[in-house]
Amino acid sequence: MTSLGDKGEGHWETTALLGDEDEGSVQTQTKVLNQGSWTQVSCPCCVSEQVEPLVLIQLSDNIQPVTKRWLISLIGVSERDGGAALLAHPGEDECGDVIVVSAPRCTLLKATEDLGLCKKYRNGDMVAFSYNDRENFSNVDDMQEFLTLAERQYIVKYELDFLRAQKEQKIPGVPESQGVLKARENICQKLEKAGVIKDIFPLHDKQRLTDLGRKWYSGKQIWGQPLDSIQAYFGGTIGFYFSFLDFYTWALVPPAILGLVLTFLLPGGGSGGGVVKEQAGEGVMEGMVEVDDSPSVSGHMVQAMFSMLWSTLVMEFWKRRSSSISHRWGLLHLTERFAEPRPGFHGTLGINPVTGRLEPLFPEWQRQLRVGLVSVPLVGLFLGLVVLGMTGFYHGEALAQGFHQDSGSLFSGALLYLPSVAHIVYTNMLGNVYRTVAMQLTEWENHREESSFQNHHTTKVLLFTFFNYFAVLFHIAFYKQDLPLLRKRLASLLIVTQLVNQCTEVVVPFIVDRFFSAPQKKQQEDDPDVDKLRAQRSLPPFPGLFAEYIELLVQFGYLSLFSCVYPLTAVLLLLNNVTEIRADAYKICKLFRKPFSAPVSNMGVWQTAFEVLGFVSVMSNCWLLLLSPRVREFCLEGGISGRNIILFAILVEHVLILVKMILAFMIPDEPDWVRIKREQIEFHSMQALGQQKL
Amino acid sequence: MTSLGDKGEGHWETTALLGDEDEGSVQTQTKVLNQGSWTQVSCPCCVSEQVEPLVLIQLSDNIQPVTKRWLISLIGVSERDGGAALLAHPGEDECGDVIVVSAPRCTLLKATEDLGLCKKYRNGDMVAFSYNDRENFSNVDDMQEFLTLAERQYIVKYELDFLRAQKEQKIPGVPESQGVLKARENICQKLEKAGVIKDIFPLHDKQRLTDLGRKWYSGKQIWGQPLDSIQAYFGGTIGFYFSFLDFYTWALVPPAILGLVLTFLLPGGGSGGGVVKEQAGEGVMEGMVEVDDSPSVSGHMVQAMFSMLWSTLVMEFWKRRSSSISHRWGLLHLTERFAEPRPGFHGTLGINPVTGRLEPLFPEWQRQLRVGLVSVPLVGLFLGLVVLGMTGFYHGEALAQGFHQDSGSLFSGALLYLPSVAHIVYTNMLGNVYRTVAMQLTEWENHREESSFQNHHTTKVLLFTFFNYFAVLFHIAFYKQDLPLLRKRLASLLIVTQLVNQCTEVVVPFIVDRFFSAPQKKQQEDDPDVDKLRAQRSLPPFPGLFAEYIELLVQFGYLSLFSCVYPLTAVLLLLNNVTEIRADAYKICKLFRKPFSAPVSNMGVWQTAFEVLGFVSVMSNCWLLLLSPRVREFCLEGGISGRNIILFAILVEHVLILVKMILAFMIPDEPDWVRIKREQIEFHSMQALGQQKL
Repeated sequence: MTSLGDKGEGHWETTALLGDEDEGSVQTQTKVLNQGSWTQVSCPCCVSEQVEPLVLIQLSDNIQPVTKRWLISLIGVSERDGGAALLAHPGEDECGDVIVVSAPRCTLLKATEDLGLCKKYRNGDMVAFSYNDRENFSNVDDMQEFLTLAERQYIVKYELDFLRAQKEQKIPGVPESQGVLKARENICQKLEKAGVIKDIFPLHDKQRLTDLGRKWYSGKQIWGQPLDSIQAYFGGTIGFYFSFLDFYTWALVPPAILGLVLTFLLPGGGSGGGVVKEQAGEGVMEGMVEVDDSPSVSGHMVQAMFSMLWSTLVMEFWKRRSSSISHRWGLLHLTERFAEPRPGFHGTLGINPVTGRLEPLFPEWQRQLRVGLVSVPLVGLFLGLVVLGMTGFYHGEALAQGFHQDSGSLFSGALLYLPSVAHIVYTNMLGNVYRTVAMQLTEWENHREESSFQNHHTTKVLLFTFFNYFAVLFHIAFYKQDLPLLRKRLASLLIVTQLVNQCTEVVVPFIVDRFFSAPQKKQQEDDPDVDKLRAQRSLPPFPGLFAEYIELLVQFGYLSLFSCVYPLTAVLLLLNNVTEIRADAYKICKLFRKPFSAPVSNMGVWQTAFEVLGFVSVMSNCWLLLLSPRVREFCLEGGISGRNIILFAILVEHVLILVKMILAFMIPDEPDWVRIKREQIEFHSMQALGQQKL
Repeated sequence: MTSLGDKGEGHWETTALLGDEDEGSVQTQTKVLNQGSWTQVSCPCCVSEQVEPLVLIQLSDNIQPVTKRWLISLIGVSERDGGAALLAHPGEDECGDVIVVSAPRCTLLKATEDLGLCKKYRNGDMVAFSYNDRENFSNVDDMQEFLTLAERQYIVKYELDFLRAQKEQKIPGVPESQGVLKARENICQKLEKAGVIKDIFPLHDKQRLTDLGRKWYSGKQIWGQPLDSIQAYFGGTIGFYFSFLDFYTWALVPPAILGLVLTFLLPGGGSGGGVVKEQAGEGVMEGMVEVDDSPSVSGHMVQAMFSMLWSTLVMEFWKRRSSSISHRWGLLHLTERFAEPRPGFHGTLGINPVTGRLEPLFPEWQRQLRVGLVSVPLVGLFLGLVVLGMTGFYHGEALAQGFHQDSGSLFSGALLYLPSVAHIVYTNMLGNVYRTVAMQLTEWENHREESSFQNHHTTKVLLFTFFNYFAVLFHIAFYKQDLPLLRKRLASLLIVTQLVNQCTEVVVPFIVDRFFSAPQKKQQEDDPDVDKLRAQRSLPPFPGLFAEYIELLVQFGYLSLFSCVYPLTAVLLLLNNVTEIRADAYKICKLFRKPFSAPVSNMGVWQTAFEVLGFVSVMSNCWLLLLSPRVREFCLEGGISGRNIILFAILVEHVLILVKMILAFMIPDEPDWVRIKREQIEFHSMQALGQQKL
């Protein structure tokens, strides 16, 4: 996409490089990058009038020009000569601390095949792209149409990530102590370790971002999201997150309606926000208790049964939706297994038995052993420490209270706060230690594929976070067996977390954007030619989707685990999510650097997490029903003994789990048309394998 | 494999055609089939000096010669002209009621590709066979080496099964009312319906059978089985059955040792066969009971925990073994999905969207609906009827006993037997009705693939049979909660069923073979030229593996569900299985017609059944531990209340299920080397797909 040498004098306008998105910003297309400064390509088909800046490499402030030149030439050199076959641009001038990177057509197309992306074939089907057959794919001449922006940017990162030193060599301009590359060493990793590269991130495209924002969060519509545009701009993982958020918000409508009906229409069904006066006994079978205001037995039962089956149906239908989205976005046949291993992977150099390529090898059984014998016990240990902390807290609180009642002094009064403070400090420290341990454990497990790495890492953090969130509620429900307290706690958690979320996610960003960004904006308007790159460099990096997903998971947990004690949960969550969608959209568009987003074919481990939660919810709901004073009263009136109630509850639990499993099994995980498309491809590749050997 | 016309005069000797396997039978190779009577092939590569008779079509006694000639020509005609491209031989003479069928080389090779069988490539790998690339496969010139006997015979059946009328036509020699074929109608099905074809079955190969028998059951070795030879001779399904039987018998060794140790070495661990005197209360928490002779608490616990984890480990390791067997036998890449639908499949004629072939189509969602909305409820109804029958039986027995005690007359004494008799009659009738219903339901579900049909049918029958076997034990364990009775019942069931099995499977066959077959044998010796085909036609058809598998499943059920009440179960089962292997082998070799056996890549639904049983066993064992008087005594001594024991048992159950699931998840389902081979093939076919479009 670089121009030929003889056309290399002119300037061109880039449409990228984020500023802000005021109405007057149509003229913010700036003359920033000198066209002639892009590295040259030899391949004639890759020559282009306009080069689109895709990725920015942020170098250290004190970078030596010789290092920068070396890096630029490395990026531009063909893969055969150990380069990345990309296009590099030195930014404003030769001494600046950035390199802007783009990719020529051939590199993009070859990487598209390597990644296993599906693209529209001339017959309209989505077919795994093949470089040899490129002429038969639609839009193959226009990279802007053929690949999404996110894909083009990911490909640049992909190529940069696999830059390896061809032989042992010194990095020019870097002290000898840090700057010696071993043969086959990963260059980008080494440069980051040596402090030469500070960050690599994709550049926003101002025009597209404005368009996307208008369709997404500035408009008047409450429900729809432009999911295809989101995926095209931000990429697979983020596209899947917002698709799920969308789907899940819709799915909240039935339980919300049910909750409203049970609370306001059915007699005896009200407890929403009212004063809960009932007193539950200490144990399960302590006999009759005074009951005032809890939901009616039938309402209780209906709510519990509904939420148990609802969670399975939601996840099964999401799987179907997920696979059709995946097909639509061409992500159904990713070939990560057959691609190069992720940069952090290490092992003894050898021939990959599957692909026949030279690469580091690490036996699968050894990884399994590491996971099974080290990671699992260590994670278990940390979960144990969480429980220990909670036990200690309750114990300490009881001690402090006893001491205060005995002495009643000012000192003992202050001492009352000690357990809470100690517990908060303990939890925070534990959390920090755990995060480090989880990352290092996952690195040490040495996963070959990035997705496998992510899944294992996410699972570890997820388990811990989830445990932290729910330990108290489980403690109240299962150990204290105090239903009114659980109800109070749940209501306050839901309301407080939502208020806090709305604050941090909507109000604060809005204020920051309106008031604090204003001076900066002025300055930019004064100086329209200033490098807009600076604006993007000043943004904080995107923190990832973990926090967003865990928020949904915790919501889902509140709803399915404990909803029968507080029927309005779904209504509150529904309200929350409608604003959540806009807030998340605003956040990702305006407040952070654009993140890289790998092409993925599903939500990965999060899907499993939601499904597991669905099964745990059966146990929790059955238990809550068992605890419910009304249910017990009802049973005792019917002459059923306490022992038989328990046994009956166990039976119900087992039957419900069976029903959920049968439901999950009966509902196919992909719609018929996706299955047919998938089988078509399998059939064709089987045929191709047979004919190839002729 | 038929000779050219000019060589067609001579006679040749067939090595097939079972007689018996005395030492003197080496000379039983008989001149039966006139070589020149085989239909001719046009393809020069398929011409062979010797044609091996593979399959026998048994026609009705009053077959018209014109019908027989028509059928023979149909079998011999090429597929393009609507035939089966096989070789047919009229048997002894033109009027006889048999047709012997064989297959020429090209038909065999093409069908090998269609079925997706893997064969040894010249580089030593197992590769899905491709007709175009046939020269690069080992032994491709010698069909006897290249394909196993079972495969060759299955291919003949496969070709016969897909004979379809090309246009509407009359079958010659059959009355008009039955003998009109519609266009695309399945010819073999029609002929069977019209009574023209009575049976189609593969022929035994005397020499190979003798060799196999010598290695398998006549030898002195107790453990090993010649699994490869079994698979080669009898085919995939039977090969998998005996492999599993082998594996499972080995797997019984650890629990058998544990059982022996617990029973004879540990103090308080004995109850094996002794008089069980303890009296358990009616309910769970009725307090202390007198305990005499049950196994010790720790022994009890150890046995239960062991059997719960053992069942998971066995099935996980079997899966690994199964996949490596499957690879070894070239069955890992079967392409049933892409082949023609099974003969019984019907639907509207259309283009298969996957393969692009014209065939009947039936939408998947409609099948799912039929299964979900009709089959599942109906099966549930029948299971309910079983329970109803059992309840009625217990009720009736109580009534009769009451009546007898009141009146004490002879009539009332006779009446005591009425409930049992009624129950037996009811169960038998129900079983017969259910078998018909299950078959018709499965037909009506209209499965496209034979394996899917088999799996659904087996599941239905399996559920019912299993329910019938275990309903009484579950009733005793869960409803009556009478542990001593359960122990007595289990011991007697184990001993009685084993005695009965040994009788029916070993002794009776032996007697039949030794004494009743003797006269026939003599006659054969008198007349060595007699058509040995008659001997095979007189054998009963093989009843299938259902009874064999269900026997293993019930064993596995006794062992994992209730073993902790009777620790010697595993020892008895181990003894049983060692003889079972020989008995089954003898049976299948000598007492039945050889069955067709489809190439399959695993045990199908039986594997799932064993796994499900493993999970049910956790519930059952936890419950039995809860019932155990010793455990309750132990807990009460430790000051744990009855309520908390139940809750603790539930907790233990859930944790154990979790542990089993984690174990199942952690142990990979296939060994590393099989995974690599599989991924290699996926990689190659992906590459082939990319290159094919050049």
